[in-house]
Order: sequence, then structure tokens, then C-alpha cells
Amino acid sequence: MAIGSVVALAGGVGGAKLTQGLAAVLESGKLTVVVNTADDFEHLGLYICPDLDTVMYTLCGLNNLEAGWGLELESWNFMEALQEIGSETWFRLGDRDLATHVQRTYRMHANDKLSDITADFCSTMGTDVRVLPMSDDPVRTIVDTDIGPIPFQEYFVRLGCSPKVCGFEFEGIQTAVFNPLASESFNAQDLRAVIICPSNPYVSIAPILSLAGARNQLRNIAAPIIAVSPIVDGQAIKGPAAKMMRELGCNPSALSVAQEYRDIVDGFVIDNKDAAEARQIEEMGQRVLVTDTIMTSITVKKRLANNIMDFANEIQARNI
Amino acid sequence: MAIGSVVALAGGVGGAKLTQGLAAVLESGKLTVVVNTADDFEHLGLYICPDLDTVMYTLCGLNNLEAGWGLELESWNFMEALQEIGSETWFRLGDRDLATHVQRTYRMHANDKLSDITADFCSTMGTDVRVLPMSDDPVRTIVDTDIGPIPFQEYFVRLGCSPKVCGFEFEGIQTAVFNPLASESFNAQDLRAVIICPSNPYVSIAPILSLAGARNQLRNIAAPIIAVSPIVDGQAIKGPAAKMMRELGCNPSALSVAQEYRDIVDGFVIDNKDAAEARQIEEMGQRVLVTDTIMTSITVKKRLANNIMDFANEIQARNI
Repeated sequence: MAIGSVVALAGGVGGAKLTQGLAAVLESGKLTVVVNTADDFEHLGLYICPDLDTVMYTLCGLNNLEAGWGLELESWNFMEALQEIGSETWFRLGDRDLATHVQRTYRMHANDKLSDITADFCSTMGTDVRVLPMSDDPVRTIVDTDIGPIPFQEYFVRLGCSPKVCGFEFEGIQTAVFNPLASESFNAQDLRAVIICPSNPYVSIAPILSLAGARNQLRNIAAPIIAVSPIVDGQAIKGPAAKMMRELGCNPSALSVAQEYRDIVDGFVIDNKDAAEARQIEEMGQRVLVTDTIMTSITVKKRLANNIMDFANEIQARNI
Repeated sequence: MAIGSVVALAGGVGGAKLTQGLAAVLESGKLTVVVNTADDFEHLGLYICPDLDTVMYTLCGLNNLEAGWGLELESWNFMEALQEIGSETWFRLGDRDLATHVQRTYRMHANDKLSDITADFCSTMGTDVRVLPMSDDPVRTIVDTDIGPIPFQEYFVRLGCSPKVCGFEFEGIQTAVFNPLASESFNAQDLRAVIICPSNPYVSIAPILSLAGARNQLRNIAAPIIAVSPIVDGQAIKGPAAKMMRELGCNPSALSVAQEYRDIVDGFVIDNKDAAEARQIEEMGQRVLVTDTIMTSITVKKRLANNIMDFANEIQARNI
């Protein structure tokens, strides 16, 4: 059992998997996950938080492994009826998943904070991990593409990531306040590491780091900051990260991700398949851990989490 | 096939059944149903219209016959998940039914009129009957009881009608506008009859008749107005009408219902079982039709509808 507290920054599937490993190797109540909310959106009047839900469902063991989103043992009768009355069906909402969206929307309209609603969900669904939205204020990713600017979920789900990406905007980022509970967790006396999960650097991690004060606070903490590459062997395990990199004129590689995080990261974790890139990453001043990062089972997730914690200890020891 | 147009006033189950019979015996497009909306409410942020939905689902052959509300072939996975996250579950929302509520709420928030939304539902669900909410403005029934005033659905569903009724208030009734399309349908050149369905006189029909202008307009139309008793043999076929009558110090009988409608009705339809009350009702100046009013099958519904139309013709012929 690793000692001390850890803060993880996460987006969707890949991030969620690693938080599951971390939750299993840390003491109860010692993991905080700061989750991207820039791909949240309102759909049919419902307030939907895809990354928050993926992290929350995964930590509670309720996630749909096959789809990579939503709940396991899901049914689709709402969706079928919605189609019959001619409503929008491009964004799939399962019958059970809908309870989360309806309840969240209801409470948001009653001016409850997304943080509080999320905490209540975690408590009723059964995890003691502190899952925090990066902000209680709305931030919305707009994908700049060859066919114009597109709201993230339209790009991601409706258009299946097909338009060519040329950049990103995070609407609302100038005024959104970095979650004070996240800020607090960075300042914990027993903080052992901040871990940037293997999530999309452009649309999952960048929004978190773009919130006023977040990046600066990270630069000034004593505990090591470790990022895990979401790119393995030139491919994203899931999602459009590699495609985005190519379209932005950048080689899809662990090295390219390491460059994105250059100014804040102490250690970088890459997969065995990318061992050849270790030296170049080290030359940028980051320590490198080469290990198995493809999280195909809870065993691999826990082993990876343990390896990352050992890596953090090692960096910490050298820095003293 | 009966000739000309008909307007029916209806609440939930009993009303919906008769409209189904009327739709089957009238020419296509000649039936307008003006539906009570005073038992509408917002639940978990969703805009729910129980009577409108019951009428609409019944006319489209989608209704759950056994429950008397909601859709047939329904599933309850949303409800189960809602319970798991500790939300309110006293009002049951089926997975398929939910599509109606989510879509309606979405459009209401976009300032679409309830009339327009209902018309679109009817068109996609498949009925050419014109189903009209009594008003596009909110009216809310409050039940005055021995334990204080209670919003209708709380009284009806959560408390299972157990508190003792001493009266009713229709919040918003002073400012709500009687649906202009309903008003128009009363003025149709080919209007053959207005039919007050066998619905609860206090909480289904009274709200409609209490809208400014509605009662007066009814008093001045040439076509016969015919009410069908929701009380048979001292009992309501469904719902709390008989219990309410007793608590209001009134004998639960067809005669008592006839008294409620005394000022506007030309003809009153009672069940064979209540034949003994015919004379007393006639003495109040209403013509009486004694027939089988218990609508256990589509055959009975159609026969009742045909009998009512013949009854209307007879009254019309005598009045000329």
C-alpha cells in the first residue's frame, strides 16, 4: 500500500483506467481525481458530463468496458422511443445512464454546484475517491477544423472526428475558476505525486492546465509531477489523439506528448514499445519510466499504478 | 360513420377510452379533444402532463391498459438507476415514456407552446385526432385536505388519495388563456356535439370549465352538450371521484354528477346499472341516455360512441 495522497488529472477512458489502478494501491480516501469538464454539453436540455461520468462509473466498477463510455448492462428503450418521436439520436443515452443526467440537470437548475452533485453521485454509487470537476463554471471545447469551428461533442460523436483539426478553443476558460478543492489537494501536506493520466493532451488535459492558476500552481509544488503517455507505438489506445497530432503537423509519438508537458513534468512514463524514445525525452530534462502501460486488466492497472508510485518516490529522493 | 365534428373534454383514463371510441366512429380529422392540464407538474425538472399523455397514448394505441397510464411494453431501468443514486422515485417514469417528457421539457424551455409540441407528438405517434391542452399557460390543481393543501400529484400518487378532501384550487386559472384552438373548435360550422367524457368532474373537467370564457362559450353553442357519468353504481370506474364526492358530503351517484353539469348540459349518459336515477336527472331538465358505459373493449367504446352520437342527433332534432 502506497503512503500519502495523490492527485490525478484525467479525461475519459484512459485516464479513468489509471485512476482505478491508483485507487487500488493507495490508502482509502487518498486519491483525488481532477476531471476535464470542457467536453460537457447540454443535449435535449440535459446537462451531460462525459469525462466525469466515465471516471465515476469506472471507479465504481459500473462502466461499460466494451463501449468505453456509459454503464454496463445498459438498455436503450428511451433512445428507441426518442427516435420514434423524431427527436435527435446522434448522442446515445442509455436508460440507466439517463438517471445520472436527469438528476444532475435537476440539481444544476436548482443552483447546486457540479462539485457537490458529483460528490453525492460518488457516495451513492460507491467510491471513496474524490472526483472533482476541474471547475464549477462552464468551459466548452470548440474544435477548429477545415470545415470551421465545431463544438466538441458534435466533432467527436456526431462527426466521428472526421474533420481535419487545426486548433482548439476553450470557451469560458478566461472566467472559469479552477476548482478550489483541486487547488487545495495540490497543497496537501502528504502529497506524494501529481499524475497526468494517459488522456488526450489537447482536449482532456490542456483545458485543466489552461484554467487560471492551475499550471502555475503545478510548477510550484514540491511533489513530483508525472505524466503517462496516451500514445503507444504511434497510436492512441482510444480516441483521436494520434489523428489530431498528425493534423496539427506533429509526429504522433510519446516524445511529442512529452514535449507538450515539458514545462511542468518531472517524470514521463512510456510503454515498453516506445523504449527507443526514452533517451530523447530524458534529454529534455524529464526522467523516464519504461513499462507496460496498456491497461488490459485490473492487474496491469495496479502494477502500472505501483510502478508510477515507485517512480515518484525515486524522483522525490533524488530531488532532496 | 357519423357526420360532422365533435369536441370532447377529457381528463385521464376514462376520458381517453371514450375518445378512442369517438375517433373510431367519426370521420378522420373531425374529433378535437380538449384535455385537462391542471394535473401537469414538474418532476425532477421534467415537464409532465399525465392527462395529455394518457389521451395521446390511448388514441395511438400505445397505452398501458393494465396500469391505466404510461406506455405498453415499458421498461423501468431508468427508475431503478434513479433509486440507486438516491433520487425521488414516488412518481414512476418508464424508459420509453421518458422520451416524451425529455423532448417536451426541452421544447418548453425553448419556448415552444404545449399545443404545438402536443400536435407534433400526435403526428409522430400516429393519430389524426386533434389533441389540445386546455391552455398553453400553467394551471395547477391544489387539493385542500384535512392535512392542508397538497399539489395534485402529491395527493394522487405519493399519498394515494388518502387525505380527506375538502375542496380544490386551480392555481393560475385567473390568468390562463383558454386554448384559442379549443375555442375555435366550439365554433366549427359542422359541430355536432360537445361531449364531456366520463372523467373526474372536480379535477379533470372543472379546470377546463373554469378557464375564463370556456363555460360561457359552451352555454351559447347550438350543438348539444352531452356528459357521460364517470360514476357507475356508486363507484368510479377508476380514480378517486367517488371518494371525493363522499368527502365533500355528496352522494356518489350519476345524479350527483348530473347536478355538477346542470347549467351547461343538454343530455346525460348513465349506465344501465343506474337506470333508476334517470327520472330524477330528467326532472333537472336534462335528457337521459341509459346504456352500457363500461368500456371494456374497443367494441363497447365504439358502440357507446355511436349511441352518444345518435343521442346528440335526437336532441338536436327536438331542439329545432
